[in-house]
Amino acid sequence: MHIWIVPCFLILLMQAGFALFETGLGRAKNAAHTMSMTLLAYALGVTAFWACGYALMCGGAGSRHHAVGSWGPFSDMPLLSTLFGARVGGHWWGLAGAKGFFLTGGIPGTADHDMLITGFLFMMLYMSVAATIPTGTMVERWRFKSFCIFTLLVGAVIFPLYGCWMWGGGWLAAMGKNAGIGHGALDYAGSSVVHLLGGTLALAGVLQLGPRVGKYDEDGNPRPIFGHNVPMVLLGTLLLAFAWFGFNTSHSFAAADGRAGVVAVNTALASVAGALAAALFMGMIYGKPDPSVMCNGMLAGLVASCAACAYVEPWAAFLIGAIAGILAAFCVLFLERRGIDDPVGAISVHGIGGLWGMIALGLFANGTFGHGTHAVDGPVRGLFYGDARQLLAQIIAAAVCIAWAFGAGSLVFLLIGVWLGSNRVPIEVEIAGLDIPEMGAPGYPEFTTPLAPEQVPLSQTMTPRRR
Amino acid sequence: MHIWIVPCFLILLMQAGFALFETGLGRAKNAAHTMSMTLLAYALGVTAFWACGYALMCGGAGSRHHAVGSWGPFSDMPLLSTLFGARVGGHWWGLAGAKGFFLTGGIPGTADHDMLITGFLFMMLYMSVAATIPTGTMVERWRFKSFCIFTLLVGAVIFPLYGCWMWGGGWLAAMGKNAGIGHGALDYAGSSVVHLLGGTLALAGVLQLGPRVGKYDEDGNPRPIFGHNVPMVLLGTLLLAFAWFGFNTSHSFAAADGRAGVVAVNTALASVAGALAAALFMGMIYGKPDPSVMCNGMLAGLVASCAACAYVEPWAAFLIGAIAGILAAFCVLFLERRGIDDPVGAISVHGIGGLWGMIALGLFANGTFGHGTHAVDGPVRGLFYGDARQLLAQIIAAAVCIAWAFGAGSLVFLLIGVWLGSNRVPIEVEIAGLDIPEMGAPGYPEFTTPLAPEQVPLSQTMTPRRR
Amino acid sequence: MHIWIVPCFLILLMQAGFALFETGLGRAKNAAHTMSMTLLAYALGVTAFWACGYALMCGGAGSRHHAVGSWGPFSDMPLLSTLFGARVGGHWWGLAGAKGFFLTGGIPGTADHDMLITGFLFMMLYMSVAATIPTGTMVERWRFKSFCIFTLLVGAVIFPLYGCWMWGGGWLAAMGKNAGIGHGALDYAGSSVVHLLGGTLALAGVLQLGPRVGKYDEDGNPRPIFGHNVPMVLLGTLLLAFAWFGFNTSHSFAAADGRAGVVAVNTALASVAGALAAALFMGMIYGKPDPSVMCNGMLAGLVASCAACAYVEPWAAFLIGAIAGILAAFCVLFLERRGIDDPVGAISVHGIGGLWGMIALGLFANGTFGHGTHAVDGPVRGLFYGDARQLLAQIIAAAVCIAWAFGAGSLVFLLIGVWLGSNRVPIEVEIAGLDIPEMGAPGYPEFTTPLAPEQVPLSQTMTPRRR
Repeated sequence: MHIWIVPCFLILLMQAGFALFETGLGRAKNAAHTMSMTLLAYALGVTAFWACGYALMCGGAGSRHHAVGSWGPFSDMPLLSTLFGARVGGHWWGLAGAKGFFLTGGIPGTADHDMLITGFLFMMLYMSVAATIPTGTMVERWRFKSFCIFTLLVGAVIFPLYGCWMWGGGWLAAMGKNAGIGHGALDYAGSSVVHLLGGTLALAGVLQLGPRVGKYDEDGNPRPIFGHNVPMVLLGTLLLAFAWFGFNTSHSFAAADGRAGVVAVNTALASVAGALAAALFMGMIYGKPDPSVMCNGMLAGLVASCAACAYVEPWAAFLIGAIAGILAAFCVLFLERRGIDDPVGAISVHGIGGLWGMIALGLFANGTFGHGTHAVDGPVRGLFYGDARQLLAQIIAAAVCIAWAFGAGSLVFLLIGVWLGSNRVPIEVEIAGLDIPEMGAPGYPEFTTPLAPEQVPLSQTMTPRRR
Repeated sequence: MHIWIVPCFLILLMQAGFALFETGLGRAKNAAHTMSMTLLAYALGVTAFWACGYALMCGGAGSRHHAVGSWGPFSDMPLLSTLFGARVGGHWWGLAGAKGFFLTGGIPGTADHDMLITGFLFMMLYMSVAATIPTGTMVERWRFKSFCIFTLLVGAVIFPLYGCWMWGGGWLAAMGKNAGIGHGALDYAGSSVVHLLGGTLALAGVLQLGPRVGKYDEDGNPRPIFGHNVPMVLLGTLLLAFAWFGFNTSHSFAAADGRAGVVAVNTALASVAGALAAALFMGMIYGKPDPSVMCNGMLAGLVASCAACAYVEPWAAFLIGAIAGILAAFCVLFLERRGIDDPVGAISVHGIGGLWGMIALGLFANGTFGHGTHAVDGPVRGLFYGDARQLLAQIIAAAVCIAWAFGAGSLVFLLIGVWLGSNRVPIEVEIAGLDIPEMGAPGYPEFTTPLAPEQVPLSQTMTPRRR
Repeated sequence: MHIWIVPCFLILLMQAGFALFETGLGRAKNAAHTMSMTLLAYALGVTAFWACGYALMCGGAGSRHHAVGSWGPFSDMPLLSTLFGARVGGHWWGLAGAKGFFLTGGIPGTADHDMLITGFLFMMLYMSVAATIPTGTMVERWRFKSFCIFTLLVGAVIFPLYGCWMWGGGWLAAMGKNAGIGHGALDYAGSSVVHLLGGTLALAGVLQLGPRVGKYDEDGNPRPIFGHNVPMVLLGTLLLAFAWFGFNTSHSFAAADGRAGVVAVNTALASVAGALAAALFMGMIYGKPDPSVMCNGMLAGLVASCAACAYVEPWAAFLIGAIAGILAAFCVLFLERRGIDDPVGAISVHGIGGLWGMIALGLFANGTFGHGTHAVDGPVRGLFYGDARQLLAQIIAAAVCIAWAFGAGSLVFLLIGVWLGSNRVPIEVEIAGLDIPEMGAPGYPEFTTPLAPEQVPLSQTMTPRRR
């Protein structure tokens, strides 16, 4: 009776988690704008995905899963012939589906049509997360209209095409069968499909958008801009950690693969390891755990857990999470010094964390799971368990994800900027705050904010103990 | 093993969503009062519903469902004889159940008793939402004692009686079988039972209570009073959008009707369409999307989706939601100009949205679903699919809902006012804020609020671009 | 397909609820510190429980459940021989498990190993709640390093050992079979295992830590220190009330005992009764319901419902909750006057509420449930249904819980204090707020807090009407 869709619902709660996380790390003068972007990333993304994206992504989904095994809602999807692609070297390499625009194309009330619709629920929720990630990096200066158009294109084209290649029966998934590269690229719950893609889009955007006014001094040294509401950041993180159980186990429930317990435990262990590793890292450098870095560490652990959570043992999940936490904490500092102003750390958390998650599957998969799911025949093993080719498949897929998201994202962002004149709000709007000029409503009309955060005395806070 | 009750749990999270939504749209000086009303609407409502309401609503539930088909927890409820009603024209028209006061009346530990108790969980959660809706409209001036008594009566009598007529085997549901009016009135997840009822109660109350001090100038023109915390409003909306998956699909899981996937997708599409339509509407009038109107649009889409979500196609759900969003945005402005001060827009969102949802079922139901559920035999079709009588049934039920809620609500509100002297706090309490005088605790003792919201410069915010 | 773990997920949301509840009841200057402690209680606790605690608690779990009946994930756990204990009077009394450190010890990919891992998910979430409770009582002055070490030991040893005695097949559970004391001690969802244990640890800690600076005047009379954000407190309470459905029903779903509906309804009735009783109690003493006391009443009702929720009728659950609410409201005031400064009321809510919950099972269990679950053969009856021995078993278990938690907690806290020099932050840090000195980041850098809460005029707030 479709009870497997209940954990999917949790993924929508991640919009609330991201909204809090991003808004809390921004300044009060932009709070209404940031919150609104997160809600609209869902609304615009779902609309575009319903109209177009889902057909591109899953309109040919039967083709992969028809071959071997089954995968949840798509296991018997009778849409085989609608996967467009090319025949190269005697093999079929799928590029894009083409059925189900506006969720039409079948006969309402039939089981096939119901499957088409239910599968949409599943995929649209993952899409929403990917569409939301760039809003965090470009917060506090992204023009509202530019954001709207960009998000529509992410939901309509950018997410769905890579999604097709990996989850919709496309060529990355077929690398194993067609070319003997492992079992083809695997991504259980979206380290690449959702997070690496979203993080790379964020990078593509911010390189064109530039840092916030006041982020760097005359010598180009970064200045701290405090998030206005740390409790909001931590609440967002806890909501995300909770909802991530749904994010990762939904794939298990959809496929009825019996791994939900293992997946949930690996998810939790990766998250706590990420938080502890990031806090220890900051403690060693600055003498104090930074709450927002700790949160980013937890999120990085969660992101990294997505790809591999069904394939690895608990100790490996813990290790994967810990490495992700340190990577995220380090990259936040590294990018900040390189002139990339990512107020929430989304490039580090989702981009680097997602990349590491893809690679981690290729290292730690222990061979006890995989046969009969995701069109895989035979156990999935990583490098440490004797299969270097699976690692290769993972690296190829991650490289393709980065290239596609960066290329398509940069081009789209550039064209939107040309069309609108600018992707960025005018400087006076940025200084005054985006809430009233862009959204028409102040975030906190009753709470005064007499000190600009730049004026808050920093002496006691984050003085490096050593470098 | 009762796993179907898990999505029901989500409905309780809607109390948190409403609490945030209503509090954020009010002023800081009333924050503790508004939050407390929402929590107590649950506590008082459930107590009254346990003592009395559930017996009135579902104490005769077997009678409808015994006839044809089945409906979840009540499908075999052996309480047929306890439905009070009247025999008119050779047919039995049920008015009220009369079994299960205080959840007693059966033998503990038996399957029947367990069914009685489990069904209570289901219904009490819907009741809570209905009981909470009026608190939003009457916020910032409703006297605490008046609220308590009113809520007890909503939970004990007002909600349950209409609920019986529609969901408990009563006369509105029997209109099809008894009088050939469609399949009787249908309301899959509560557009009328919960939302139209709650919105009408809000209207009945506010007409007696009047607008807040300072809402209108000497000429009777409305003045904007900003919500004190827009992030709170958006967080509440996102929690509601998430929890609504449970609100709407619970009926599917309870009845095991196989529509949960379609219901969830239709719910999501209606919500995003409502948000986008309301934002576009405001953008066209004022040049800027207003975050709180956008949120109200999303909620209106959700409200309108309740009745029809199992009966319509995705494109229709999107259209229903978009119309609901525009209706809500328009009605908020319309009512404000007519002297009805509804700070959160509950009359527009729940009242108008719920009314539209009932009618929408009578227009867009496509005939692919309905047979064998809710005592319906045969496909449910709306006007656009050839059955004008189903539309008639929907309109009758909506009219009855409005008449009952407005009549009973007005009378009860009037009597409480007579009993207590006034339903409204004294003017000096209203100006100072209700938190300390009514609840005994300030909402934010450490955050100063030096500017009254009336003093915030409005020049840049909501200047109409054209009218 | 493991769908029973979905309600377990909700337990993680309780960390978000506690974080909000505790932070809102503290002052703004400590907000980042309090939020961070709650997140880390999860991260540190899970790490310690994974490394060690789970093996101690459940490494011998098969032994109880093998005997009679079944209990969810542990029903067939083949780890019988690893329960350490002693043979006294011809009976085996288990003391600690010893299998599953770091979730190793079986063959990955087998059903046994999967069961081991899935059971960990279940237990780690309950552990997290217990580990979080002391942070509420010791908030605003607990040194961060001391908290970290204490939490590791709670997760590694203190929670697991009592957990083994009650849920892991240990001697408290065996009292029935071995010594004829009822059916052995029973605790369906953790009134003692989680809450009484956590509340007692909080008491042990705060007796050594002492009250906050400024809490008592020169004559030792308590002074009110307002929580800085009442909406945060109410949101936390609503999240907890929602998540508690998962907390209590998870045991039902895990065991497939068919009581989930009854459990959920009893949970809800106890919570609303607790809230109403506490609000009425405050209303009678002070003339006003205090929102935070009302919330504590609701939580106390929830805590008290845990042990008995599957064994009692709805009216009894309502009564249990109401008594818990009054007990909590009274104890908060009582302890405050005795020099115990518990800013969130955790000792009263979790300690007293948990104690009452254990006793309530021994009073109200009606004999309709219990046979075949938790290794019980025969119906479970409380004193009012003719079995005084079950009450005795409950009292023994509660006394053991208090003695163990107080003894072990006090000793550990003392040793940590000796090791670190002090468990408490320096007085200048406490006065300035812990956010920047301990965590390195201010909670709200943009919201001014010109008035210390001690300076807020109290005249209108909580003047006792009579005493």
